[in-house]
Amino acid sequence: METIESMKRISRKNIISPKGFKAVGIHCGLKHKKNDLALLVSEVPASVAGVFTTNAIQAAPLSVTKQVVYETQKMQAVVINSGNANACTGKQGMKDALTMQQKTAEHLGIDQNLVGIASTGVIGEQMKMEPLLAGIEQLQPLDSLEGSIQFSQAILTTDTVTKNTAYATAIDDREVVVAGVAKGSGMIEPNMATMLGFITTDANIESEHLQQALKDITDVTFNSITVDGDTSTNDMVLVMANGMAGNNALTPSHPDWQSFLNALHAVARDLAKMIAKDGEGATKLIETKVTGAVSDEEARKIAKSVVGSPLVKTAVFGCDANWGRIIAAVGYSGATIDPDDIKIYIGTTLVVENGEPIPFSEDELLIYLKQHEVKFVVELNQGTGEGTAWGCDLTYDYVQINATYRT
Amino acid sequence: METIESMKRISRKNIISPKGFKAVGIHCGLKHKKNDLALLVSEVPASVAGVFTTNAIQAAPLSVTKQVVYETQKMQAVVINSGNANACTGKQGMKDALTMQQKTAEHLGIDQNLVGIASTGVIGEQMKMEPLLAGIEQLQPLDSLEGSIQFSQAILTTDTVTKNTAYATAIDDREVVVAGVAKGSGMIEPNMATMLGFITTDANIESEHLQQALKDITDVTFNSITVDGDTSTNDMVLVMANGMAGNNALTPSHPDWQSFLNALHAVARDLAKMIAKDGEGATKLIETKVTGAVSDEEARKIAKSVVGSPLVKTAVFGCDANWGRIIAAVGYSGATIDPDDIKIYIGTTLVVENGEPIPFSEDELLIYLKQHEVKFVVELNQGTGEGTAWGCDLTYDYVQINATYRT
Repeated sequence: METIESMKRISRKNIISPKGFKAVGIHCGLKHKKNDLALLVSEVPASVAGVFTTNAIQAAPLSVTKQVVYETQKMQAVVINSGNANACTGKQGMKDALTMQQKTAEHLGIDQNLVGIASTGVIGEQMKMEPLLAGIEQLQPLDSLEGSIQFSQAILTTDTVTKNTAYATAIDDREVVVAGVAKGSGMIEPNMATMLGFITTDANIESEHLQQALKDITDVTFNSITVDGDTSTNDMVLVMANGMAGNNALTPSHPDWQSFLNALHAVARDLAKMIAKDGEGATKLIETKVTGAVSDEEARKIAKSVVGSPLVKTAVFGCDANWGRIIAAVGYSGATIDPDDIKIYIGTTLVVENGEPIPFSEDELLIYLKQHEVKFVVELNQGTGEGTAWGCDLTYDYVQINATYRT
Repeated sequence: METIESMKRISRKNIISPKGFKAVGIHCGLKHKKNDLALLVSEVPASVAGVFTTNAIQAAPLSVTKQVVYETQKMQAVVINSGNANACTGKQGMKDALTMQQKTAEHLGIDQNLVGIASTGVIGEQMKMEPLLAGIEQLQPLDSLEGSIQFSQAILTTDTVTKNTAYATAIDDREVVVAGVAKGSGMIEPNMATMLGFITTDANIESEHLQQALKDITDVTFNSITVDGDTSTNDMVLVMANGMAGNNALTPSHPDWQSFLNALHAVARDLAKMIAKDGEGATKLIETKVTGAVSDEEARKIAKSVVGSPLVKTAVFGCDANWGRIIAAVGYSGATIDPDDIKIYIGTTLVVENGEPIPFSEDELLIYLKQHEVKFVVELNQGTGEGTAWGCDLTYDYVQINATYRT
């Protein structure tokens, strides 16, 4: 993606790289010490698109924000707390979510229907509204790098690093910037996108087309990662497009439509990979590319089966070139395969051909597997379908983090 | 099941409790020290039924044994090695599997088509045939408890305990015994039954009806457990019925048909629970019962989603009453639910009602969760479907075992 001529990755990449956005993050008291309240604001109401968890149990903030995305179809601000998911909190939880939206709108002096909200953290505990509301009063969005850093910190839970990216592209000979920030870590099995992701752009585009673009790229980015197979109750990705780049309105027939899609795709893919790499307890990013499947969809299904396998994940943690677990995960993926016509590469080393073992140097693969990013390639020879998925290794730290999460 | 009057659990339960079976296990050299070769023999050819992994990648021994089950429809002996799965070993693997069958038949002086074979262990390595064939020559089946113990040890891989059970029931006023032995531990996500299970009975029953009975109980026993969500390439459950109890041939219209089904069900359920409890690295058995689902199938799907969730599993390991993860797993199971009409119990403590948190004593639940078997009940109030699934906690030891499996 980085090689596309008309697009460049922005070095000082952050959520306010596009024109007309401000951000801030503070500590309000839902967590012990770390930042736990974040606000992103656009100078003007922005076109908005969103994708939400497919879990049948959905947290209160999702109802509130879906209303903004699907009914208002414009968003000017989004406020996020970490430390409490406001999920499975019943009527009180819904009331609290609406209050969070209302107080943010009042504080900013904008219409309540233009404010999105998101929450992440423990499920099943009522929100502490006193510190939350006091915190909202203190939010002063900044157009500086500092504000953006605070924002990206305040949305984290067990994440160990902040996740930012941005790309610039040319549309109508104007520079349009697309930037994104995300949190991930645990309960990551996006069937949409089990995480929080916020993407900003100064592109001029109606919500309808923005929604279509987001949906199209979600399957091959956020929906192609897994940390632990647990689909969360709270996750969403929002895109706000405030039009301040001044391009002609983007539609699929605009000559630069593909440039915009490429930038949006690159931002989403970067965030997805950063989430996978920073999965709870992870030491490594695992990428699996599948080619020759009967369809792209099946290729992604197989790739996700491999990166999601606890046995593959622990083998990668142990730097063990145990390809038997890779082929077993291909086998139980449910996709169409011919066991006698499979090639598997670990890095660039062929380890299986026609379903039979190929001798390889364990020492060389050990060196390869000690790297922070490992790649498997599975060639099926059944068709032209291709797909890639990303995951992470399964480590002692994953167990430690999740055995003691509430304590 | 134990309360059914006509059936009793056998105290000194083992695979040769039914009349006319002998067993033995030895060390032949596929593993360093432990027993790795096992043989079970019936005095006379037995009716046979089998269920096999649904993984599209299937090990060579499965082809060989399926031939016996589906074509011969009789089995007199089954030989099993541990230490090498003979999976993904191509043409050489198939040749080796047939040799293993042939040499066992010659050693016992019976028809090759009456011999089943099974392998478990590392995937993708060719079988060391020299020690295997020398081992087969040494196999002397015993009708003593000792032989049965050796057998149950020799089929293990990372299992920490042997798994035996047996029940006696009355059919035509004769005692009929059904006994079972299994190995499990890792790569357990039965979509059939990802494990090895061997069930013997002296009941008189044709293969056709035995196969139907086995299929019927598999869904609610072996297919209702999970250790790590990885469906193996090698797994099978075989039932051998040698008829030596002398009852009239069992068919679904036999007055004692249900008694036989009950005994078979009890054996399969015991083995399934033992496998779940002895999952790799596990310290606890997790049972989840779901009631009020729209169907039994959906109830089992939800129950499996809960016991399979890495976040539920780590919480149980940490003795954390984190019911939010239970309800999240219910939500992403894909089954029909109403989030506002769910009750969840941890043990007998109600923690969620109408989708809202119910205050409970963390201390009391901590004591409950420190036990070796923990039970969750999920009431959905959507219909009359019921189902139960079993799993185990996810621990540091699971990671340790699987990060270093081949080394």
